[in-house]
Amino acid sequence: MSTAGQVIRCRAAVAWEAGKPLVIEEVEVAPPQEMEVRVKILFTSLCHTDVYFWEAKGQTPMFPRIFGHEAGGIVESVGEGVIDLKPGDHVLPVFTGECKECKPCKSEESNICDLLRINTDRGVMLNDGKSRFSIKGKPIYHFVGTSTFSEYTVTHVGSLAKINPAAPLDKVCVLSCGISTGLGATLNVAKPKKGSTVAIFGLGAVGLAAAEGARIAGASRIIGVDLNSKRFEEAKKFGVTEFVNPKEHDKPVQEVIAEMTDGGVDRSVECTGSINAMISAFECVHDGWGVAVLVGVPNKDDAFKTHPMNFLNERTLTGTFFGNYRPRSDLPAVVEKYMNKELELEKFITHSVPFAQINKAFEYMLKGDGLRCIIRMDA
Amino acid sequence: MSTAGQVIRCRAAVAWEAGKPLVIEEVEVAPPQEMEVRVKILFTSLCHTDVYFWEAKGQTPMFPRIFGHEAGGIVESVGEGVIDLKPGDHVLPVFTGECKECKPCKSEESNICDLLRINTDRGVMLNDGKSRFSIKGKPIYHFVGTSTFSEYTVTHVGSLAKINPAAPLDKVCVLSCGISTGLGATLNVAKPKKGSTVAIFGLGAVGLAAAEGARIAGASRIIGVDLNSKRFEEAKKFGVTEFVNPKEHDKPVQEVIAEMTDGGVDRSVECTGSINAMISAFECVHDGWGVAVLVGVPNKDDAFKTHPMNFLNERTLTGTFFGNYRPRSDLPAVVEKYMNKELELEKFITHSVPFAQINKAFEYMLKGDGLRCIIRMDA
Ligand SMILES: NC(=O)c1ccc[n+]([C@@H]2O[C@H](COP(=O)([O-])OP(=O)(O)OC[C@H]3O[C@@H](n4cnc5c(N)ncnc54)[C@H](O)[C@@H]3O)[C@@H](O)[C@H]2O)c1
Ligand SMILES: NC(=O)c1ccc[n+]([C@@H]2O[C@H](COP(=O)([O-])OP(=O)(O)OC[C@H]3O[C@@H](n4cnc5c(N)ncnc54)[C@H](O)[C@@H]3O)[C@@H](O)[C@H]2O)c1
Ligand SMILES: [Zn+2]
Ligand SMILES: [Zn+2]
Ligand SMILES: [Zn+2]
Ligand SMILES: [Zn+2]
Repeated sequence: MSTAGQVIRCRAAVAWEAGKPLVIEEVEVAPPQEMEVRVKILFTSLCHTDVYFWEAKGQTPMFPRIFGHEAGGIVESVGEGVIDLKPGDHVLPVFTGECKECKPCKSEESNICDLLRINTDRGVMLNDGKSRFSIKGKPIYHFVGTSTFSEYTVTHVGSLAKINPAAPLDKVCVLSCGISTGLGATLNVAKPKKGSTVAIFGLGAVGLAAAEGARIAGASRIIGVDLNSKRFEEAKKFGVTEFVNPKEHDKPVQEVIAEMTDGGVDRSVECTGSINAMISAFECVHDGWGVAVLVGVPNKDDAFKTHPMNFLNERTLTGTFFGNYRPRSDLPAVVEKYMNKELELEKFITHSVPFAQINKAFEYMLKGDGLRCIIRMDA
Repeated sequence: MSTAGQVIRCRAAVAWEAGKPLVIEEVEVAPPQEMEVRVKILFTSLCHTDVYFWEAKGQTPMFPRIFGHEAGGIVESVGEGVIDLKPGDHVLPVFTGECKECKPCKSEESNICDLLRINTDRGVMLNDGKSRFSIKGKPIYHFVGTSTFSEYTVTHVGSLAKINPAAPLDKVCVLSCGISTGLGATLNVAKPKKGSTVAIFGLGAVGLAAAEGARIAGASRIIGVDLNSKRFEEAKKFGVTEFVNPKEHDKPVQEVIAEMTDGGVDRSVECTGSINAMISAFECVHDGWGVAVLVGVPNKDDAFKTHPMNFLNERTLTGTFFGNYRPRSDLPAVVEKYMNKELELEKFITHSVPFAQINKAFEYMLKGDGLRCIIRMDA
């Protein structure tokens, strides 16, 4: 029996309050409206961006909310006007969409879509400014247009990448955010040349995917920087050749790196969300040609501060969402990289829990234990 | 009779104290040592960088000193080991040299030479840590390895670009710093695409050369920003199509520009030296693809401050010395652009004074009157 057009009742993990464990609730999921798609989520994982907005320290609080944006699923039904997707298609939801109609989407100048760019302060659908989730009629907010911590979710069609149905969703779901972000930050934005030196700040899944990008690009030295030395053992599997824990040095880590590299690294990629790491990542690149890329999500009130001479000395600083990939246009090819064994995803997946134990995934991340924890929705 | 190997007595404009008028004095100029060249300066002009270090507000004071770095001259004699230049060669001194031996010079990755990079805090020659200028035996400091406010100066061979002897030195002397810097900042660093929008902060000679670069690159709109509305009339000759005086608006100039351009310009080039203008120049570029380039020389204690989200939104910030040109390798070709009439220099030259009236050039610049004032050494 088709559920299309019907309200679906299913389980979702609801965040009722900042920093409090999620609660598995029965929610109502309304049918998709114009240009929307309802997706059955099979696997989701936890990215640090979920944790920041759930903690809501230095971020706008918005509760109750259904978090989650790294996932894989199958289209259940589509709303009016949706022609690119049909029930049964395998999809990865992405927090920064691609409408294919706006000036940036058409110009190919950037992956920041005017319509579907990331908006962490919006908790409703674009179409009618309302939520598709409710509990006994009371609306529950969406998160970055994806809200994948639910057995069913509704997204704009532009927030879904249609992928090869042969790709195992329990693996490629991590390409829906973190791994593509880190990989693209290096390959599409930092673009290290063969033989160059690269520093990676933050050795979580995003940072290690950035390291993987540096390895693929042929970097000669990959310097991993993390406050958590437990990360170093794992990071060796990702081609990281040297480690620096800022806590173990009296001087700023940018100076330590400059000494290790005769003046600075050629490229650096920041994947922490810490403003101090952002400044260090910029100041540790070599003058004359160094490029630093910011990936971590900062707090609302953070200020990036440096001496302007650091720019005048021909250093470059930039940042990226989703590694500059356009989700609908580019993500299917990243999935193919996995299918062709050019890209290994298994080593990023260190834990797996049934949906009912989703709070364990939060605990692992808060403890810095492992990289990605897959949450199995059907279990 | 050759003066080679002899101390030369000649006139120089000496800055005895910060902000006090220069005094024309008779100085002794020692012969060039190993890898040094003594140059007879024929024409020099004043660039704002001279003024900053002469005023020494927020810059390290070093007096008495001979300023000047934008000039044209003829080689008088060469020291040991100099093979690239000989007496009679026409040269432009450049504040950021090119040794052709260090890693950056060899890699072609940058124009920041390890040996001869700009150093505003060094007032002596590299060879022996001493000055070649003296008055009755008392040393007078050099400035950025050029000190062109003297009838004769001594520089490192790597700080001189050998140019076409047919080029009129009273015109091409302005390519020795400001005009090449602005032109290169746009053409080599900002690299606007045809049809793009460009904002130029500061409409002095450097900024107008940057505008000229934007015009050559085919920009569709060139927005000039200056606190001094007197600059606007002149700027029309340089292809600037619109003007914004930040003083005439209640909101920050970056917001004014964002409104004028549907979200921001594609490129901006800052040529003021003001930290506020640097921040505005960065924040006024469009997210997704905008690139801002810093050219102005900041104060020692300035801090560049912005929200890190401005980078994450895929804006890029960088800076440049001398428009990323390598003086010895690239400047001769810029001179040829003038010889081929691809580049007009006359419109940058608004005043001319005999050497004895060099302080007038300072007055013009401080009043924001005109662009470049040529100082004629033989007059
Ligand atoms: N720009 C994007 O499109 C995008 C996409 C996904 C994630 N993110 C952001 O990327 C960052 C990393 O995400 P993740 O899921 O890998 O998180 P994670 O928690 O698994 O990893 C972050 C790592 O950074 C380390 N760290 C924190 N502060 C540090 C500091 N000052 N110096 C050095 N190391 C430090 C932590 O110890 C941790 O190992 C987060 O800020 C996340 O919000 C951004
Ligand atoms: N990076 C380099 O290689 C290099 C080389 C040469 C000059 N410079 C620097 O470039 C800058 C320009 O030099 P110039 O010789 O053209 O100077 P200039 O004095 O002729 O022009 C500077 C212009 O900036 C304007 N200005 C100042 N503050 C402003 C603000 N907040 N907003 C808008 N406009 C503002 C002034 O009114 C003036 O018209 C100086 O800082 C100079 O030191 C850098
Ligand atoms: Zn994420
Ligand atoms: Zn779009
Ligand atoms: Zn100058
Ligand atoms: Zn060199």
